[in-house]
Amino acid sequence: MTAAAPKVAIVMGSQSDWPTMQCAAKVLEELEVASDVRIVSAHRTPDRMADFAKGAADQGLSVIIAGAGGAAHLPGMIAAMTHLPVLGVPIQSKALSGMDSLLSIVQMPAGVPTGTLAIGEAGATNAGLLAASILATSDPALTARLKAWRAARSDAVTERPVE
Amino acid sequence: MTAAAPKVAIVMGSQSDWPTMQCAAKVLEELEVASDVRIVSAHRTPDRMADFAKGAADQGLSVIIAGAGGAAHLPGMIAAMTHLPVLGVPIQSKALSGMDSLLSIVQMPAGVPTGTLAIGEAGATNAGLLAASILATSDPALTARLKAWRAARSDAVTERPVE
Amino acid sequence: MTAAAPKVAIVMGSQSDWPTMQCAAKVLEELEVASDVRIVSAHRTPDRMADFAKGAADQGLSVIIAGAGGAAHLPGMIAAMTHLPVLGVPIQSKALSGMDSLLSIVQMPAGVPTGTLAIGEAGATNAGLLAASILATSDPALTARLKAWRAARSDAVTERPVE
Amino acid sequence: MTAAAPKVAIVMGSQSDWPTMQCAAKVLEELEVASDVRIVSAHRTPDRMADFAKGAADQGLSVIIAGAGGAAHLPGMIAAMTHLPVLGVPIQSKALSGMDSLLSIVQMPAGVPTGTLAIGEAGATNAGLLAASILATSDPALTARLKAWRAARSDAVTERPVE
Amino acid sequence: MTAAAPKVAIVMGSQSDWPTMQCAAKVLEELEVASDVRIVSAHRTPDRMADFAKGAADQGLSVIIAGAGGAAHLPGMIAAMTHLPVLGVPIQSKALSGMDSLLSIVQMPAGVPTGTLAIGEAGATNAGLLAASILATSDPALTARLKAWRAARSDAVTERPVE
Amino acid sequence: MTAAAPKVAIVMGSQSDWPTMQCAAKVLEELEVASDVRIVSAHRTPDRMADFAKGAADQGLSVIIAGAGGAAHLPGMIAAMTHLPVLGVPIQSKALSGMDSLLSIVQMPAGVPTGTLAIGEAGATNAGLLAASILATSDPALTARLKAWRAARSDAVTERPVE
Amino acid sequence: MTAAAPKVAIVMGSQSDWPTMQCAAKVLEELEVASDVRIVSAHRTPDRMADFAKGAADQGLSVIIAGAGGAAHLPGMIAAMTHLPVLGVPIQSKALSGMDSLLSIVQMPAGVPTGTLAIGEAGATNAGLLAASILATSDPALTARLKAWRAARSDAVTERPVE
Amino acid sequence: MTAAAPKVAIVMGSQSDWPTMQCAAKVLEELEVASDVRIVSAHRTPDRMADFAKGAADQGLSVIIAGAGGAAHLPGMIAAMTHLPVLGVPIQSKALSGMDSLLSIVQMPAGVPTGTLAIGEAGATNAGLLAASILATSDPALTARLKAWRAARSDAVTERPVE
Repeated sequence: MTAAAPKVAIVMGSQSDWPTMQCAAKVLEELEVASDVRIVSAHRTPDRMADFAKGAADQGLSVIIAGAGGAAHLPGMIAAMTHLPVLGVPIQSKALSGMDSLLSIVQMPAGVPTGTLAIGEAGATNAGLLAASILATSDPALTARLKAWRAARSDAVTERPVE
Repeated sequence: MTAAAPKVAIVMGSQSDWPTMQCAAKVLEELEVASDVRIVSAHRTPDRMADFAKGAADQGLSVIIAGAGGAAHLPGMIAAMTHLPVLGVPIQSKALSGMDSLLSIVQMPAGVPTGTLAIGEAGATNAGLLAASILATSDPALTARLKAWRAARSDAVTERPVE
Repeated sequence: MTAAAPKVAIVMGSQSDWPTMQCAAKVLEELEVASDVRIVSAHRTPDRMADFAKGAADQGLSVIIAGAGGAAHLPGMIAAMTHLPVLGVPIQSKALSGMDSLLSIVQMPAGVPTGTLAIGEAGATNAGLLAASILATSDPALTARLKAWRAARSDAVTERPVE
Repeated sequence: MTAAAPKVAIVMGSQSDWPTMQCAAKVLEELEVASDVRIVSAHRTPDRMADFAKGAADQGLSVIIAGAGGAAHLPGMIAAMTHLPVLGVPIQSKALSGMDSLLSIVQMPAGVPTGTLAIGEAGATNAGLLAASILATSDPALTARLKAWRAARSDAVTERPVE
Repeated sequence: MTAAAPKVAIVMGSQSDWPTMQCAAKVLEELEVASDVRIVSAHRTPDRMADFAKGAADQGLSVIIAGAGGAAHLPGMIAAMTHLPVLGVPIQSKALSGMDSLLSIVQMPAGVPTGTLAIGEAGATNAGLLAASILATSDPALTARLKAWRAARSDAVTERPVE
Repeated sequence: MTAAAPKVAIVMGSQSDWPTMQCAAKVLEELEVASDVRIVSAHRTPDRMADFAKGAADQGLSVIIAGAGGAAHLPGMIAAMTHLPVLGVPIQSKALSGMDSLLSIVQMPAGVPTGTLAIGEAGATNAGLLAASILATSDPALTARLKAWRAARSDAVTERPVE
Repeated sequence: MTAAAPKVAIVMGSQSDWPTMQCAAKVLEELEVASDVRIVSAHRTPDRMADFAKGAADQGLSVIIAGAGGAAHLPGMIAAMTHLPVLGVPIQSKALSGMDSLLSIVQMPAGVPTGTLAIGEAGATNAGLLAASILATSDPALTARLKAWRAARSDAVTERPVE
Repeated sequence: MTAAAPKVAIVMGSQSDWPTMQCAAKVLEELEVASDVRIVSAHRTPDRMADFAKGAADQGLSVIIAGAGGAAHLPGMIAAMTHLPVLGVPIQSKALSGMDSLLSIVQMPAGVPTGTLAIGEAGATNAGLLAASILATSDPALTARLKAWRAARSDAVTERPVE
């Protein structure tokens, strides 16, 4: 993480979510966007979650990325307690492969949105990218870095598969 | 509802859940178990929910029935903030027929249980019955009423279908 | 298990369910709640099941935890033969990952409830916790142990993930 | 129903299953196979179910057709208490369209089979036909009627659709 | 297999289905029911399938067990070409774990039944058992063996799980 | 239908599939491609199906469109008996909304392909279009008509929605 | 829509999506956020889509909301051609109730995110709210309006359900 | 691949799709049909995709096989930009086993068809076969090779399974 004051928080329900969620941290670091990473459990530490969510805007955060699995309540509950954009990452769960996580995050009622990404690591990477694109709406330098990041990825697509 | 101080709370996320949840209220009334019915939205009134859940035990409640649909966070979030038994009723949702509600309620992580009933009205009725059976573990009179209620239902099963 | 007369029974359809169901036994032991563990198969020993279910209340049991997989009939059939609260644990099945177990347990018709927990080990642990919370409605000492157990878990949530 | 002593029983969990299950009765009547129709609820009348299942063979029955919906335990529980062939019809349920009924009936563990038919009316008709084909394995006259029934249906398929 | 002329055929779409389908052969052998095992592919050898299905009754067969995976057409197509009872075993498929196999077999239209068993090995074992119970409707000796087989299994259920 | 000898056959399992399948006939007529429409049931008229499929190439047909619902075996069985390209249309079924039809058609084993279209009317229309595009690979005049048809549809997309 | 130059575009694949997508337009209007509404079909007007997506940033847009149903490619394809944040709304489809739309939108590969909302009208409303919260990260006046909008909704939650 | 100018293109979204898609290349090679294999990502190289799709017909291609996984937009987007027949192969995805890929490819709206094959390697093989059968509609020599290929496979089906 860079030294700048973080505008993006990456939160997750438990240590076991970190192998997935570090993909969000990694892409933000590549884009030179500072992030604050912490464990905030909706079910085990609801007060810590509430303090975090209600204080997020005052703390200078602009976007919150929340990952959770199974009955995944963290993204939606944070969204209920802040007006900041909240992005949800469904962790791939053991029995139902993340279908439970996905539906628990995406099917929010009208009034409290969570922008939901794909199940698992691709979703975590994309949460980082979407957070960056949100910040980039008012940060031309970040826009430039984001465009370069994307262009580099496009250029990396080879013409032909190799065995 | 009877005049006795309620030991069961029936909460739901919105007015639109009431046609389902009233089945819980109805069966409790038949069993002469007082209940307190209120709207507590995890997403629109998270503080009211927290106040309710944290104060439930002190208020004299013994069991909480919570109904919610879609990304149904109410039962699990209440369970995160009280040690009382929490029973969850998945409301039948419009697009996914309550499969989202069911998974959002039942797939709780180890440590924070919600006893989940069937999707829709049958689940609400059964939440009332299960709440009664929980209270009946220390209330012989209620046990007797519960057994009578069940016997009456069994007796009502006819031998043959009618056209 | 403690020496006290068990108020909770943990039953399961086959030996192969034990690796999952022992999570229920373990958490009850941590909470100093005596449990009686036995194999009762709805399909292979229906009479043993009926004897168990019908005699459960007289035997002094207050709560029954039943685990089963696939076409999981054990929790619902026990619930049909006792007025005690029955908690169901869907075992993760081979082909359908427990979705069949979950639906077979949770979708009970109005009149015969099973309080259903999550698929697999988390569900078994939570069945133990929910059973304890049910007993705690009339046992202040258990309430205190339950609150302590929960608080310890909350305190164990670290602030930051570790690599 | 014909006057002959019934070799096929058609049982169902509730009156509401009859509009579906009468398709089984109807096709058996067309094939001149006597059937005995009754309501036997696994959950509301478990003793009646046990009496029925255990006595079925002695009563002269050869095949049992059982219809049930939701957490559909009737076919499997009857199969647990008789060695007669049991055919299961998943009733189309309200929230999950019979997917719960289907999985609850078909996913039986090794040792206790239920021959499962399609969800709803087609399944009920086919349960009647399959029961007839089972009886026909030792009844040449019924075999002839069954073949004629099938041939008539094949002949009724028109060459071209009509508007 | 015993030396008696087989009354049960076990057919499957490919060699790769044999590890599953041999469970049907095994239980029939335990019950001293002769079976004829062969590979008959609906898609690769449709004529062989038609010859087999149309000739099955004349060949002396009484029951046909057919296993298939994915777009599993074998049981239904055989059922279309014989009046004998056809039992279907959904093979656990690679991508969709047998849900495709199950629906392809069980959802037959009115008029052409397949009695469907569980996905995978349990289903194959149960197809063997159900075939035996069908033959037993007119074979008292087999009935006795079937009852003994079932009783032995019930007796083998231990009282308590072992670690 | 035009007077030209038909190169496309549209077949379906029953009269009830016609409201869906006529969308295929309609678009082929718009493209001036003659089609032959007939009812061919895999389950009720397997011999008619075999005769049709085996004779299709000799009859001058180039593409076969087959619609079926539930355990939808028609497209795959025709594909097993002809080397012509076979396109499958999953009919929207009553209980499972066509998910059973889709999986029964699309999940064919290696060696026998069915090109599967969307569930219901959109799929039938698209089967007609895909059949036309197949014929167009060797028919420049049809290519021109197909391109015009597509261009007209693109042009018909308005800029703004109207209330 | 207000007279201000729109920072949010609402695009959809067809006129039939408008009854859903107007919920996004409506909430943006309530928040005094100008939006530009247009029909852009990924499948019928791919060039118009490409022109729109590539030109969106230069046109002054900051956020794009895209709604689509079935094989819903519009949100992801726009996201492939702009660095702006793209929010996807799964339209409830006829056969599969929007599950196809949801998976087609949310399961994007790493590198190209779409922030996905709930199926149907709730999702469209929430896409509008999330777009507003994104703009609000650099617009204090909009932040204030957004907070007021949310507070009003919370205040509107009644204490008790009414019959 | 043979030296002839390729009439079939096999395209895929990423290198990781090649182990699946090479099954299409392999069967085409067996049938002596030249194919052109390339990586064309809808999301990372949309312009390359558009150039490819729009130029495909002029390049002499007759059929396009496109494989993609997850939110699989490649087959449908190519189909939007060419009148050639497009065949789609759903790659088995990590979390959802290819159900997301399948629905994203097959559920195309009326007007833009993709002929969809099975999930994974069987689907890729079958895409190759279906492409060959399409070319064979105007190529008698290929028809002969295709018939021989199919006959050889039928002949290879053994009579009995081996242990």
